[in-house]
Amino acid sequence: MEPRISLITLGVDDLARARAFYEALGFRSSSAGNDNVAFFQAGGLGLALYGRAALAEDAHLALPAGTGFGGITLAYNARSRDEVDSVLAQALEAGARLLKPAQDVFWGGYSGYFADPDGHPWEVAWNPFFAIAPDGALRLPV
Amino acid sequence: MEPRISLITLGVDDLARARAFYEALGFRSSSAGNDNVAFFQAGGLGLALYGRAALAEDAHLALPAGTGFGGITLAYNARSRDEVDSVLAQALEAGARLLKPAQDVFWGGYSGYFADPDGHPWEVAWNPFFAIAPDGALRLPV
Repeated sequence: MEPRISLITLGVDDLARARAFYEALGFRSSSAGNDNVAFFQAGGLGLALYGRAALAEDAHLALPAGTGFGGITLAYNARSRDEVDSVLAQALEAGARLLKPAQDVFWGGYSGYFADPDGHPWEVAWNPFFAIAPDGALRLPV
Repeated sequence: MEPRISLITLGVDDLARARAFYEALGFRSSSAGNDNVAFFQAGGLGLALYGRAALAEDAHLALPAGTGFGGITLAYNARSRDEVDSVLAQALEAGARLLKPAQDVFWGGYSGYFADPDGHPWEVAWNPFFAIAPDGALRLPV
């Protein structure tokens, strides 16, 4: 296995609503999508949206009885502190729910969280220790 | 916002166990990690492991009462059908649980699923319609 991730698929309740949200954030729909699934190029990987129940069925997983934290967060690392504020504002304008206002954090950066229309949590962070290449790739210290 | 994802963080119950699992799959720990968090370079993004409760607290989210599908799947797109089988075998050898044996799927590819030691679902798929660059980047149709 090569150390990489190809796709992240978010289970959604309303594909049209979710697609509109991510398009409002600047993601462009791929022609590979259809009425049941959306794909967006996200740097070197794909972000996909698919019905939550259909996704669970595809993975042979049971749907949870309750709601709450699914155990995964996504993050967008901004190029500056100011970009954290502007991306959070853009997300709220597009219909996100603010989970945590941007604030200085113990590890030396600046970070906030929003939830997308299906509740998937995204951190928006400025981390002065992680480099971001011109093409947007994150480069961790080796 | 640029259309990209910087980090995926998986909430884990046992960081040492989870780190060992991903190292067995070929991911290399970044020096940015410590006793509380692990980071792996995964193509142009970072894969992070962090305590599940601490991650929920960081995102100002409640932990779920139950278990089940968290609503997100990750995927590794293999370069061939045979690589799907070998990656699934490697994951099981490293301690994963098989969710769905690899099989021909309706969209024209070949796919199976495993769950990592904390239950996070990964699809391993060969998709003849999505290109994989030499550096591992997935390229969706425009």
